[in-house]
Formats: sequence, C-alpha cells, structure tokens
Amino acid sequence: MPEFTEKIQQSMLPHIRGLGIYQGVEPVEVMAERAGIPQDKIIRLNGNENPYGPSPAVAEALADFPNFNHYPDPEQRQLREALSGYVGVDPDCIIAGNGSDELIDMLFRMFVGPGDNIINLTPTFGMYSLGAEICGGQAISVARDEKFDIDLERIKLAITSLTKAIVVCSPNNPTGNMPTEADVRALLDTGILVIVDEAYYEFSGQTLMPLLHEYPNLVVLRTFSKWAGLAGLRIGLGAMHPDLAGMMMSVKPPYNVNLAAEVALIASLKDMPALLERVNAIVYERDRMMGLLDAIPTVSPYPSQANFILCQLPEGSGPKVFEGLCNRGIFLRHWSNG
Amino acid sequence: MPEFTEKIQQSMLPHIRGLGIYQGVEPVEVMAERAGIPQDKIIRLNGNENPYGPSPAVAEALADFPNFNHYPDPEQRQLREALSGYVGVDPDCIIAGNGSDELIDMLFRMFVGPGDNIINLTPTFGMYSLGAEICGGQAISVARDEKFDIDLERIKLAITSLTKAIVVCSPNNPTGNMPTEADVRALLDTGILVIVDEAYYEFSGQTLMPLLHEYPNLVVLRTFSKWAGLAGLRIGLGAMHPDLAGMMMSVKPPYNVNLAAEVALIASLKDMPALLERVNAIVYERDRMMGLLDAIPTVSPYPSQANFILCQLPEGSGPKVFEGLCNRGIFLRHWSNG
Repeated sequence: MPEFTEKIQQSMLPHIRGLGIYQGVEPVEVMAERAGIPQDKIIRLNGNENPYGPSPAVAEALADFPNFNHYPDPEQRQLREALSGYVGVDPDCIIAGNGSDELIDMLFRMFVGPGDNIINLTPTFGMYSLGAEICGGQAISVARDEKFDIDLERIKLAITSLTKAIVVCSPNNPTGNMPTEADVRALLDTGILVIVDEAYYEFSGQTLMPLLHEYPNLVVLRTFSKWAGLAGLRIGLGAMHPDLAGMMMSVKPPYNVNLAAEVALIASLKDMPALLERVNAIVYERDRMMGLLDAIPTVSPYPSQANFILCQLPEGSGPKVFEGLCNRGIFLRHWSNG
Repeated sequence: MPEFTEKIQQSMLPHIRGLGIYQGVEPVEVMAERAGIPQDKIIRLNGNENPYGPSPAVAEALADFPNFNHYPDPEQRQLREALSGYVGVDPDCIIAGNGSDELIDMLFRMFVGPGDNIINLTPTFGMYSLGAEICGGQAISVARDEKFDIDLERIKLAITSLTKAIVVCSPNNPTGNMPTEADVRALLDTGILVIVDEAYYEFSGQTLMPLLHEYPNLVVLRTFSKWAGLAGLRIGLGAMHPDLAGMMMSVKPPYNVNLAAEVALIASLKDMPALLERVNAIVYERDRMMGLLDAIPTVSPYPSQANFILCQLPEGSGPKVFEGLCNRGIFLRHWSNG
C-alpha cells in the first residue's frame, strides 16, 4: 500500500480530521469470546435492546417478501401511511429513517453548519454531540441537576445566536427520567428547533406528540429498536410540521430505509398487542430489579421510565463492577463523574 | 397545524433551502396503477434492478436469523471480512454502506464543504451532483464526448483549487460505456480523490480495484443491488487506502448497515456461482436486445457493458415512446439533449 499522501489528508475538511468514534454495542460473538462463555449465555444490557426479540411475525414476513431486488419507495408512501396510524399524525408530517440516528443526522445537516451549535442536556445519548460535530458544529453541554432534571435557567443562558437546536431525550438515556411538559414548552417558546427523542416512549407511556399541533419548531423522534425489537433492521421516525418534513425529504437519501425494515415494521404493527405485552413484562422486570438494586446498600439506582436503570456506585468501584459482570457474561455501560 | 414560522425556515442552512429531489424509482404498485395492469405484469427497467431477484438462499437466511433485536456491529467485523474475500483487498481497506449511495455521501462529507466542488462527467448517475449539493458544494459538469467517453483535457481545465473529488462511473450509468485504465490513471495522477463507481462491475468483468495498490487517492465502490439482486436491502462497499478507511469509520454512522443486508450478503456470497450464472443470462439478453434495437431504423442503441442499454431516438420522440411503454407496463427512463 502506498503512503497515505499528505495532499489527500489535507484536502479533508478540518472538522472531520478531529472526529472521535462512537462506542457502539459489540456483536454477541465478540462478547462471548471476551467472557469465555457460550453466546446464548450472554446478557446484553448495554444497548438497551429488547431481550424478547422481534415479533414472530417478522421472520415469516421477511421469508415471504418477494421483492428484495426492488429499490425501496423514495417517497415512503406505504411506510408513512403505516407510521401515521401508529403515531396518530398525518403521513405528510412523518419521515422514516435508517434508525432514528439518521433522522438526527438529517436534521443537523439541515440546520447546523460550521460554527453553529446545539444544546445538549448532559448526561445524555452520545449521538447528539457526535452528530453536531460531524456537521462541523459544536454541542454545548448544559449539565442536568443532581436528579438529572433539565435546568431551564442554565439552558437559556447557554443559548446564543448560533444555537440551531435543543435536543431533549425523553425518557433520557442513560438517566431514565423525563422532562416535564412545562419545561419542554418553555424550550419550544424560544422558537429554536426542539428535538424530543422518544426512543423509549412505549416504556414510559408519556409523549409530547400532541404538541406538534401547537409548535412548528418541534420534532418528535421514535424508534422501533426498543419496544418492537428491531434494532438490527434500522427503522425510526420523525414527526414534525409538514413544511419541515417536506424540506427534509430533499435531504433524505432516496432509498434510506431498507425493505426488510419496512416489511418488519408492518408485520410488527399488526402484532402490536403481543409486543406491548412484552413491553409490560419489561416494565414489570425493571421495577422488580429496581427494588432488588435498592436493597443493596452500596448501590443507588435512579428511578427509570425506560427499559434500563442507571445506578450510582461508590466512587471508583464502577469499572470493577463493570469488568466483573463482563467476565460473567453480563454487559453493561459505565460512566464516571470525573 | 401552525404556520411554519419564518424563524425556523431562516435558521436552515442556505444551501439546504434550494435542494431538489432525486427522482427515484417508484414502487411496483404505483406503476401497476398507472399502467392499469396487474403488478406481476410490470416490467421494471428504470432502476437497473435484477429481474431474477435475490438468491433463494436469502429468504431462508433471513427467516432463520435469530438476532434482529441486536444492533449491527459498528466495526463491521464479519461484514468487512466477507467483503474482503469478495473483492480481494484487506478488510481494513473496506467500509460497507447503506447502499453505495451512503458511501458517496460519506466521502463528500469528509472532503466537500461550502464552496468546494466535485467534477461530474455528464451524463452520469444523478446522485453525485445531488450529494455534492447536500454538502453545500457544487458539481462541475464536464460533458463527455459524442461517444460518451470522458474528455481528459476538458476535465483538467475544469479542475480548480476547490476541486475535492472526481467521480467516474464505470461502466457509466446511463451510457453503459467504460473509461480506459489510462484515462483513470491520468485522473489519479492529479492527486485529487478519484471515486470509481463500479456498481455494474459484474456485467462488465473489468475492474480498477488492483490500482488501489498504487494510488492512495483512489476509492472503488461496488454494490450488491445489481448483480446480487439486493437493491431493497441496501448494501454497497467502498475499497480504499486503509488510512482513508480509518478516517471514514469516524464519519460512518455506527449502525449504518442493517442486519438483514449483512445476512443476505453472506448468503449471496455463498451462492455466487448461481448468481453469476444469472449475470451471464442478463449479459446474453442485453446483447440480444442490442441486436433487436439496432435493427429498428429510428433507434440507435449505444454499446453497453452494464445491465441496461441507452438508445437515441429521433428528436422529440423520447417522451412519446416513454409514455407509450409506460402505458403497456414497461418502465424506462428518458433524458433529453436540450
């Protein structure tokens, strides 16, 4: 291989050269090798996935679908219609993405250029800051309070003329709590684009979707990765003002959502009662786990409206607990305060 | 719905406000309704798809895959390994995309900022210019000659200090012809990034992949949409210098290629002999069709190394022929010289 010439490297955009890599979830075979146990004994808790898998109807629908040799519909007609029924807003207010990750990226590409910023309510999902940086923008971190609630006053102080969006994860990943409707209304009243990421909606049962009728600067994101167990097939949706959705259609790659995702989504929506029973089971187990964790004197779990629980451990013990569980085949995530 | 406020619209990046929409292929049910005939009578020739569909092994592999509730591997370990065997370059030189469209987009995001440009050898695939424009860049069109061969002298005159990439589709969509290796070497010698899109490689049998060992500024793209009949599952690959691939991994969305695509790809590579027999059948039919078209006095087909044929028709008759065939359920694309 020839040396990577300086010319090519220098021709790269400056903000791209300094990008970090998002630490995603590893595949189960890598986990099994690391823990030295069989794949089917691995407990994956670090991707907030659905342990029950997709609806059984998905495998059947995929096996029967005759047209994987066709391109997906660039206008997402069938998809937007189906999603419209699920979220209860008009199809022309909806865009489907290759996971909701892609929708965050598309929104940032529309609004965030070099020099611009977004407001990020930390700790929160890592993709928001990375997404802003890929666009040449900056994520301004506004720390949540000691209960991980958002701090309106600090947010307002952080807003500048270069602020293009405020991202609110609800329930928040990884803290599990939710913003109040009043707080989100206050953010919407700034007139800045507010992206409410409801990836875990089905576990909380609370949505700000109805506010779409009041605020043209609101975007609500949903995903089928969590409640419907379709993380591997990549499908999420954004609901927003139809004019914004119309603009977004010209930024959307024509064939962004693959046909397996479309087929699986439609099969899943037909099997919603069974999938929501699984959601109930996960919520029941979450609350049971919460009680068990709370009973351990050194562990302080935070109340969660999602499908995961954040725990505080004695200072310095996080990595040890993390490693010990990894070695037993139980994979979590950990963060340090420092 | 509230009015789409001026503030949100004005907060959008200027180059995004003026974007056009890529005209993709419509779904078969829309075509059937338009032609007024059943879906199974529709002949889709406007997406350069594979009429034989995917390998029969794909449906089985999708039905049997147990882990669609897991996220795909952000590092694409299994995928890059499998693709490495297929293209004959090291796994660390390869990145898989949500279709090769996504790879074009990622490359442009790395190199093309507002004010920058790419050289586009027109007529060619429409995604290149659109991709540059989404990044705030410009596609400078350099017309091919009367045989649709690329014109080195005109290209060199068009290059400026803001030129970040030259895109060469080989065989070219929609003209079907190929650049010579000498011409591509001359482009590579400029030191500018040269993207060779070999979407139709299997139909031509000619590749510039071996030049990767000589030029760090070469990227070769391939797709499984055409020869393997996987357009709907979205998978393509880029092969390039490992340092460039390393940089690209930090721009790549962590979960960009869905697991159904990965499963289908691996099943397809195991079934390559059967898939390549279908490629031979398509090439045979292409050449037979070429003879039939050539025998029509008013139709001038251009020689093709791909899975499609471009024909010149008497001035002004294109739309009429196009419409007439649409009404019979045969869907083509048409362009005018004007």
